[in-house]
Amino acid sequence: MSQTAPVAASVTDLAEALIACPSVTPAMGMVFDCLEKQLTPLGFEVTRFVAGEAPDGPVENLFAVRRGPDGSRHFAFAGHLDVVPPGDGWTTAPFLPERRGDLLHGRGAVDMKGSIAAMVAAVREIPSEAGTISFVITGDEEGPARYGTLALMDLMRERGEIPDLCLVGEPTSVNRLGDTMKIGRRGSVNIFLDVEGVQGHVAYPHLADNPVTKLVGMLAELDAQVLDEGTDWFQASNLEITDLTVGNPAHNVIPAKASARISIRFNDLHTGAELGARVTAIAEKHGGTARPLISGEAFLTEPGTFSAILAEAIRAETGVDPELSTSGGTSDARFLKDLCPVIEFGLCNATMHKRDEAVAMADLDALARIYRRVTEAALSGSGANS
Amino acid sequence: MSQTAPVAASVTDLAEALIACPSVTPAMGMVFDCLEKQLTPLGFEVTRFVAGEAPDGPVENLFAVRRGPDGSRHFAFAGHLDVVPPGDGWTTAPFLPERRGDLLHGRGAVDMKGSIAAMVAAVREIPSEAGTISFVITGDEEGPARYGTLALMDLMRERGEIPDLCLVGEPTSVNRLGDTMKIGRRGSVNIFLDVEGVQGHVAYPHLADNPVTKLVGMLAELDAQVLDEGTDWFQASNLEITDLTVGNPAHNVIPAKASARISIRFNDLHTGAELGARVTAIAEKHGGTARPLISGEAFLTEPGTFSAILAEAIRAETGVDPELSTSGGTSDARFLKDLCPVIEFGLCNATMHKRDEAVAMADLDALARIYRRVTEAALSGSGANS
Ligand SMILES: [Zn+2]
Ligand SMILES: [Zn+2]
Repeated sequence: MSQTAPVAASVTDLAEALIACPSVTPAMGMVFDCLEKQLTPLGFEVTRFVAGEAPDGPVENLFAVRRGPDGSRHFAFAGHLDVVPPGDGWTTAPFLPERRGDLLHGRGAVDMKGSIAAMVAAVREIPSEAGTISFVITGDEEGPARYGTLALMDLMRERGEIPDLCLVGEPTSVNRLGDTMKIGRRGSVNIFLDVEGVQGHVAYPHLADNPVTKLVGMLAELDAQVLDEGTDWFQASNLEITDLTVGNPAHNVIPAKASARISIRFNDLHTGAELGARVTAIAEKHGGTARPLISGEAFLTEPGTFSAILAEAIRAETGVDPELSTSGGTSDARFLKDLCPVIEFGLCNATMHKRDEAVAMADLDALARIYRRVTEAALSGSGANS
Repeated sequence: MSQTAPVAASVTDLAEALIACPSVTPAMGMVFDCLEKQLTPLGFEVTRFVAGEAPDGPVENLFAVRRGPDGSRHFAFAGHLDVVPPGDGWTTAPFLPERRGDLLHGRGAVDMKGSIAAMVAAVREIPSEAGTISFVITGDEEGPARYGTLALMDLMRERGEIPDLCLVGEPTSVNRLGDTMKIGRRGSVNIFLDVEGVQGHVAYPHLADNPVTKLVGMLAELDAQVLDEGTDWFQASNLEITDLTVGNPAHNVIPAKASARISIRFNDLHTGAELGARVTAIAEKHGGTARPLISGEAFLTEPGTFSAILAEAIRAETGVDPELSTSGGTSDARFLKDLCPVIEFGLCNATMHKRDEAVAMADLDALARIYRRVTEAALSGSGANS
C-alpha cells in the first residue's frame, strides 16, 4: 500500500487493512505500521513507543497529532488496535477480512478497528485549520491495560497535548448504529475476604473456632448493604458474592480457614478506596480481613454540550435519538476522564468478542460521517462541556 | 498357647496375645481365633460369623455366651477387635506388644483389646451360677460399622439372647482410670446444602441469579438456630458449617451453583430425621436443597442403678468418683441402646488412635476388678435400671 492510497480508500478498505494485521492482545508491530501509513499522509505527526515489562508489558502505543492553528481546540479520538483471541468456530478466517453481502467479517470489525478506520476517514475530510486532532491508540486495552492508555496519557501530559474533549470509539451501539452512547461507566472493585479460625473436631466446638460461621455473618451483613439508590444517570451500585472457598473434605472437622470473593460495581457516589475501607471494617468486625483490588473508578461526563453535539451528529446521520447510558463493564475511558470530558460512541456491539465478528459496511460509512460532524462541532467550540 | 493357658495368664498376658494379632479395621481371622481360645476354656459357647459385602463388608463378628441357671439375668460386654491403622512414628512395632516400665505398648492397648482382656480376666473369677454373661465383639467398629454390631444384634434377637444390661468397653477414662463413664452420646447428622442459580456477568446481575446470595442467607438463618439449651445430662445441640464450595475463578462472573455442608451434633431432644426436615425447610425457603446423612441418633441411659453400681465398683477399686458424661463422638453404643440400657466405661483414652498407644498395666488389673464387681452386681439384680 503506497503512502497516499488511504486517502482514496473507502472506510471498509481502511478497516480491512487493519483487520488483516493479526493483533491479539497485546498488539505490536504490523497493525501499528498499517495505521501509521493511514495517518501520515493526512498530516499527522506519529509517535510510537513500547512501554512496560512482563508480566503486564511490553505494550506498543501510538499517539498521532495534527495541530491546528495556535490556540485552536484539541479533539482526541481514543481506541485500541488489540483484539481478543478469535476462538474457534468461525465461518471465515478471523484475520482475513471478508465482505459477505452487506457485512465485513473479521476479528476487530466492531471492536474496534472499524471505528478507527471511520475516524481516519472522517479526519481526511476535515481541513487542518479546523483545529488540533489526535489519535490516542493503544495495543493493550483487552489485556491488563497497565502500560497502554495510561502510558499514552503520561506522554500527552509531558508534551502538554491535553485535549479539550475525548471520544472513545468503543462499540456502544446495541440494536442499531446510534442508539446508545456511554457518558460514564461504573467502577469495579473485587475484594478478597479471609477468615482464619482454629481447626478442631465438630464434637468439641469449644476447642475450635469456626471461621465459616464468621464468614457467613460477614457475607450476610455485606449482602444486606444498600450502597445507594442509583442516581439520575447511574443504576444503583451492586455487590455480588462471586466465590466461596473452604475445601474441607472431613465431615467431622471444623476447618481452619474460610474465604470469599465479592465484586462491587459502583456508581460515581463511591470510590473504590471508600468501598474497600467499608468492606474492610465489616470484615474486621467479623474477625476477618479484606483485600480490595480496584479495577477502575466510576466516572460520569455530565450530560451537556459534548453529549448534545454527539447526539445531534448521530440524529443528523441516522435519524436515531441516542440513549445516554452508563451501563456495562469498564473501558479505557476510566483513565481518560482524568484528562478531559470523555464520551464513548461506536459501532453495534452484538458480535464483539464473539466468533464471526462482523460490521455492516453501511454503518462504517455512517460512523465516519458522524465522527466528522462531532469532530468539527467540537473543534468549532460548541463542544465545551458546560 | 494351650487351651488352658489363659486361665493362668495375667490381664497383661491376655492383652498382649490380642495385640500381637494385627487387626486393622476390618479385623478378621487370627485375632478372633485368639479371643475364642481365651473364652472357650471359661465355658463360653462361641459363635463367629462373617456378614456383609463390599464396600462396607465383609465383617467378622463374635458372639460368646455362658448361660447361667434358668431365669438368671444376662449381662453383656460389647467391644471391637479392630483397630485404627497405626500410622508412622512409633517407637515400638505397633503389633509387637512391648512392656516398658509400667506400660504395655501396642496398637489397641486402650482401644480396646486391653479392656476385652480385662473382661476375660474378670469373667474367670465369676462362677457360672452367677448368671448369663455374653461378649458382643465386632471386627468393624472403627470402619463403616454397617455389618458389625448391628449384625450381632440381629443374631441376639433371633436367638432371644437379649441382655438386661450392656457395658461397652470403650476407653472413656480421661486423666485417670475411673474418672469418666459415658451414659449417652450425642447424635450426628451431616447435611449437604446446594443452591442452583443462573450464571451471568457481574455487570448485568438482573440477567443472572446469584446462588451464593441465597446460600449465605440460608446459612445465616441456620447458624442463628438455637436448637435447645441443653438438658440435665447433655450439652446444647450444636450446628457447625464445615464446608463451602463455589469454585469460581472468574472475578466478573456470577456463578451457577453454590454448596455447603453442615454438621449437627444433637442431644436426645432431637432425632436426625427431625433435624433433617427442619434444615430442609430452611434450605427450600432460600431456594436451595438439603440432603441429610444421619450418622447416629442420640441416646441416654438415664442415671439409675446401672450407673450407680458401676460408680460403686469404680470407687471401690480406684477411690475415684466417676463423672457421668455424654460428650464426645459416636460409638457402637448408639446401636446397642436399642437392646437394653447401655453404659460405656474403659481405659484412659489419651493415646487412643495415636502413635505409641499404651496402657498402664496396673490399670488393666484394676479394670478387670472393676468389671468383675459391676458384672456380679448386675447379675445379682442390683443393676435393674430404675
Ligand atoms: Zn474494545
Ligand atoms: Zn474403640
